[in-house]
Amino acid sequence: MADSAGPGRSPLEPIFSPQSVAVVGTTRVPGTVPFDIFHNILKDDFQGTIYPVSPSARSIAGVKAYKYILDIPDPVDLAVIVFPSSVVKLAMEQCGQKGVKGVIIISAGFREVGPAGLQREQEIKDIARKYGISFIGPNCLGVINTAPNVHLNASFARRMPTEGSIGFLSQSGALCTAVLDYAHAKNIGFSKFVSFGNKADISDIDLMLSLKDDPATKVILMYLEEMTHGAAFVDAARKVIHEAGKPVLVLKSGRTSQGASAAASHTGSLAASDEIVDAALRQAGVIRCQTIEEMFNNAIALAYQPLPRGRRVAIITNAGGPGVLTTDAAIHEHLELAAFSDRTHDIFKRSLPVTANIRNPVDVIGDARADRYRVAMGSALEDENVDGALVILTPQSMTDIDTIAAEVCNVAAAYEKPTYCSFMGETDVASGIAILQRRNIPHYILPESMCRAFARAHDFRTEKDRQLTPAAQFADVDTAAARGLLDAAIAAGRTYLTPSDAMRVLEAYRLPVLGSAVARSAEQAARVAAEIGFPVAMKVESDDVVHKFDVGAVMLGVDTPTAVAAAYATILANVNTHQPDARVHGVFVQRMAGAGDEVILGVKRDPAFGAVVMFGLGGLFVEIFRDVAFRIAPIPLEHIRGMMHEVKAFPILTGARGRPHRDTDAVEECLQRLSQLVVDCPQIQELDINPLIVRSRGDGCAVTDARILVAAP
Amino acid sequence: MADSAGPGRSPLEPIFSPQSVAVVGTTRVPGTVPFDIFHNILKDDFQGTIYPVSPSARSIAGVKAYKYILDIPDPVDLAVIVFPSSVVKLAMEQCGQKGVKGVIIISAGFREVGPAGLQREQEIKDIARKYGISFIGPNCLGVINTAPNVHLNASFARRMPTEGSIGFLSQSGALCTAVLDYAHAKNIGFSKFVSFGNKADISDIDLMLSLKDDPATKVILMYLEEMTHGAAFVDAARKVIHEAGKPVLVLKSGRTSQGASAAASHTGSLAASDEIVDAALRQAGVIRCQTIEEMFNNAIALAYQPLPRGRRVAIITNAGGPGVLTTDAAIHEHLELAAFSDRTHDIFKRSLPVTANIRNPVDVIGDARADRYRVAMGSALEDENVDGALVILTPQSMTDIDTIAAEVCNVAAAYEKPTYCSFMGETDVASGIAILQRRNIPHYILPESMCRAFARAHDFRTEKDRQLTPAAQFADVDTAAARGLLDAAIAAGRTYLTPSDAMRVLEAYRLPVLGSAVARSAEQAARVAAEIGFPVAMKVESDDVVHKFDVGAVMLGVDTPTAVAAAYATILANVNTHQPDARVHGVFVQRMAGAGDEVILGVKRDPAFGAVVMFGLGGLFVEIFRDVAFRIAPIPLEHIRGMMHEVKAFPILTGARGRPHRDTDAVEECLQRLSQLVVDCPQIQELDINPLIVRSRGDGCAVTDARILVAAP
Repeated sequence: MADSAGPGRSPLEPIFSPQSVAVVGTTRVPGTVPFDIFHNILKDDFQGTIYPVSPSARSIAGVKAYKYILDIPDPVDLAVIVFPSSVVKLAMEQCGQKGVKGVIIISAGFREVGPAGLQREQEIKDIARKYGISFIGPNCLGVINTAPNVHLNASFARRMPTEGSIGFLSQSGALCTAVLDYAHAKNIGFSKFVSFGNKADISDIDLMLSLKDDPATKVILMYLEEMTHGAAFVDAARKVIHEAGKPVLVLKSGRTSQGASAAASHTGSLAASDEIVDAALRQAGVIRCQTIEEMFNNAIALAYQPLPRGRRVAIITNAGGPGVLTTDAAIHEHLELAAFSDRTHDIFKRSLPVTANIRNPVDVIGDARADRYRVAMGSALEDENVDGALVILTPQSMTDIDTIAAEVCNVAAAYEKPTYCSFMGETDVASGIAILQRRNIPHYILPESMCRAFARAHDFRTEKDRQLTPAAQFADVDTAAARGLLDAAIAAGRTYLTPSDAMRVLEAYRLPVLGSAVARSAEQAARVAAEIGFPVAMKVESDDVVHKFDVGAVMLGVDTPTAVAAAYATILANVNTHQPDARVHGVFVQRMAGAGDEVILGVKRDPAFGAVVMFGLGGLFVEIFRDVAFRIAPIPLEHIRGMMHEVKAFPILTGARGRPHRDTDAVEECLQRLSQLVVDCPQIQELDINPLIVRSRGDGCAVTDARILVAAP
Repeated sequence: MADSAGPGRSPLEPIFSPQSVAVVGTTRVPGTVPFDIFHNILKDDFQGTIYPVSPSARSIAGVKAYKYILDIPDPVDLAVIVFPSSVVKLAMEQCGQKGVKGVIIISAGFREVGPAGLQREQEIKDIARKYGISFIGPNCLGVINTAPNVHLNASFARRMPTEGSIGFLSQSGALCTAVLDYAHAKNIGFSKFVSFGNKADISDIDLMLSLKDDPATKVILMYLEEMTHGAAFVDAARKVIHEAGKPVLVLKSGRTSQGASAAASHTGSLAASDEIVDAALRQAGVIRCQTIEEMFNNAIALAYQPLPRGRRVAIITNAGGPGVLTTDAAIHEHLELAAFSDRTHDIFKRSLPVTANIRNPVDVIGDARADRYRVAMGSALEDENVDGALVILTPQSMTDIDTIAAEVCNVAAAYEKPTYCSFMGETDVASGIAILQRRNIPHYILPESMCRAFARAHDFRTEKDRQLTPAAQFADVDTAAARGLLDAAIAAGRTYLTPSDAMRVLEAYRLPVLGSAVARSAEQAARVAAEIGFPVAMKVESDDVVHKFDVGAVMLGVDTPTAVAAAYATILANVNTHQPDARVHGVFVQRMAGAGDEVILGVKRDPAFGAVVMFGLGGLFVEIFRDVAFRIAPIPLEHIRGMMHEVKAFPILTGARGRPHRDTDAVEECLQRLSQLVVDCPQIQELDINPLIVRSRGDGCAVTDARILVAAP
């Protein structure tokens, strides 16, 4: 973003809260974007002054028009440019001359249409930099601010949303129109609503950070088709969540490779692998949603109700079947059915009919009217074993739907615990739902969505309150040594480090590399083995021999000096037989790791997210099930533990089915050291420790093989 | 069900299509169930004659009332009983005397309230049997038939649905009211609508089979809270799907154990394990749904549009973002993006603007009007590489929503391929959606639901057309021998067969049991080993020694007669040292299996579903990942293969990552023989073959250990 803002003044202020707006390139033709934008600002009661700029018209919708923005006699805070892409450059130049500090470029025809468009986009960026202009777009729907003292609908959306506490940021303009329509029907209001298009200047990250400090915004929703600055995004989201305590919900499309390629042809962007995006968002504490509906289902829970302090829900229903469905959904989302206190039981017994089910889910029976709902809900929320109420209603013949809705709102307002509702059906329950929506009780058509929203709200509370310790910084590492080895390999034109150099890099970060050395004679091999301890593994040191096992160039469990010397000779002889022209540098001798389970640690450097660390259990678990977890380095200890537990096969290391409990503390430390290594050494492009042998508790683990791919950073 | 129907006449006919109905126990108090039911039949234009029966009222809603049903001067086909449960018995008796053949018992207070209620339920069943009455209920909402010549709303639902081709059967009455409301809002019609409650007489299975033969019903939807007759349900569903070609969709609640326990307290029913229910429904070809919305989303696709011949979809959209989301969703559901023919490409190039994306997903751009949608959709459906169209619309400022909706309907009607739509948003697109709904184009709020419905419709087409060969019947088995061993064990009071008897049972069904025998002396052991071939495994034959490995009572890989004799002595000595009082019957000698991967075959006899066969890969895959598949015996070969492929670790057997391809044909045969065995021998309660060693292709497999639990059938 052009850092043109004066001290203490956000560059977004002229865009979100202008006192005067010029619409540059508007026309008199209703039903076209250039007219609709001007007309939307006018009809939706903008509280400042609006100036149409049109090359030909004397007035637009009765408002005096100007030929050039420079002709406007008053200062202009914000210009909305709606000219065709070829003219935008000129308009931008004149905005600069006029002293405009904020611009929204609606026009399409830039980066998204190919090289010529990219060139045009660069030109307007240059002009913006020259004049200190901040701009949104190009190729966007526009910006909406519902604050009553601004009330700006600088967009070609069909409708202006009502005021609310949700901020919505979207990479897709078309999706915005669908979202506004959806939200209108559900009576959901917004604080700010931004379609940011190609984000040539102001980015999604800038916008998110500005909503962090926006008192009107309590919850931030984002629709993204790419994450080109993943690491910066993650940093920003962490700040929003931990400093401002505001939840960030992201719908990221392009999950599948076909979807990503459709997104690429649509936005001209390249996608990071979805599993990395997923890991990064989780690490940031972002709530990732798969559909627009899920995003709003979660958002209304977060925006309207207190966050639940725990997972124990009371389900209150007037019908058994839906109670069962809700129980299933709650358990599926790892919620718990609250066990009521004796006191609550007594109240239920006294106040509900004998046929009512007074255990959770509480069935107040089909003929329940508002009084029964009041008693059940109130006593449940009063109970200290209950963290929230899920209230279900089916429209039966005696159900006084609207009265129950109003009573639910009254009871909910009296407690600092959340209440969510599902009034099942549609037409008959519509008026009841409207009552709930007006009074900010989240309503869900499906019990599943209700339970998921409760779980996400609880997750967010946990995330927000979590004290993340920074990633460990071990002082006993030798960064210079590691960098030296990596730089030397790069200087020598290698892409992969030699196996022994790879081990030395790990050793410099005190990863538990097994004692090893390259011997250049049988005698040296025997001596080395005696030093590092028996038994040893031996393999030829040669880049040319790729399938070392197949040619007899590997010997395992060699356990005396004599045997080592003999093995040395055998290995060289075998290589000579199978690959006489291979260049051989000696034989690599390494202590055997001993009994343990194998795990794999890996690193890849992602263009968007930086160093991504992978953890998985060795062998088939990774190969067949792809049972692995990712995090972005540097990784705090909590997330090291999180990634280990995320792997489904992890219980194999922790004593499942009578197996030995392995030294998982040692694995944690390895992952922490690895995270530090790849942050310190940007030369590392890829790194695999495969396998790391994990011995039993207290016995540590051992790196037996490693591979490091390097490139000049 | 009481088999009281005359030849060729369904016992459900008086219930679905009565010419005269008596409402027994009705009152004059609006807002109560007894009045509402009577009034619903009257106001919803029942085409026959209706008689209120009320102990006190002279007339109800202006219609002359009778004190007893016996007082009605005309014949009565159907009686709807709404008396309190204590009086139902008497009413039922009088219905019998009156000659009524069909009854709906709305009243609650039976099995679901405990032993006293169960007793009352038994009494009315006895009366029904005495008089040859078929009845629905008790504890239900009632029955609706929308056929114009009947038009019966014998329920206390708030509204009568419109006529349609969906049959809905529900165990929960309350859910029915929510479903009717939901369907009304979505303009979904029904053929029959039944709340069957406690199904004391007419069951869900009877109802499903009656809808199989109902010409008005094209799709059958069921909400179930229990499946007490699972095997019969599966049989019936197969008939509906394969004989009538009608899809069956089931929403089964109680998926989690907490949900199941809530269902039990609600209906008094006991649930089978959900993974068995899941396997059985899949085997039957039933489409299992997780939510009501998902059920209707799938139902409208199946009821309204042709079934897709393949998975290749054309996505047509006026906005890039939703196109990406839909692509993601399609790929997630294993659909494919159709690759258009050159001809289609040419048409697109000629007819769409240059900025349009003419690859799939086809983006007709935000300013598209109906003409562009017509061209894109028509050419796509014309293309032989396309199996169906998914049409997306976002309401942008120039979008002529209603005209596009009408055009979509016109184009869709011209092709024998399905078209589904997602008009995103809510209020603005409402009139367009209404047009689609009126003309039977399935509409979805979410692209995800649309893609899932397409995939389910394609699955159903595949399922319907599948020629299931019956389960294999091997002639070379010795059923008498197997039964003899099992009966002998039962007679001897054993719960588990001895290991050698278990092997003999399997041998009788020609499962590849390794050669083995029990030797009672060292010499005999050596002789036996020489006969069955070396190397052998040996273990003590004794019920008392449970942990045979731990006490040194197992020896593996013994490979000469001398070694066998020595091992015999060692085993007995070890047992004598550790467990001197163990009763020892000798030493079990078995040929070693050789190299291979381990799989597990298992059987459990489920009270609802009968013999359930399990398949999984040995060791951690089953223990940690619970990576297993189930089917109900007898299992046709296609399903044997299906269950093997369902296991995620299966590629381990088929050469994944350079591993040897194992003899999966031999595993298939083992599963087939096992299926036949457990069908033939109901004495088998549980059976585990763990492990079955699967050797490389062509080398077969070997049962090394088996456990059989028996009980008198």
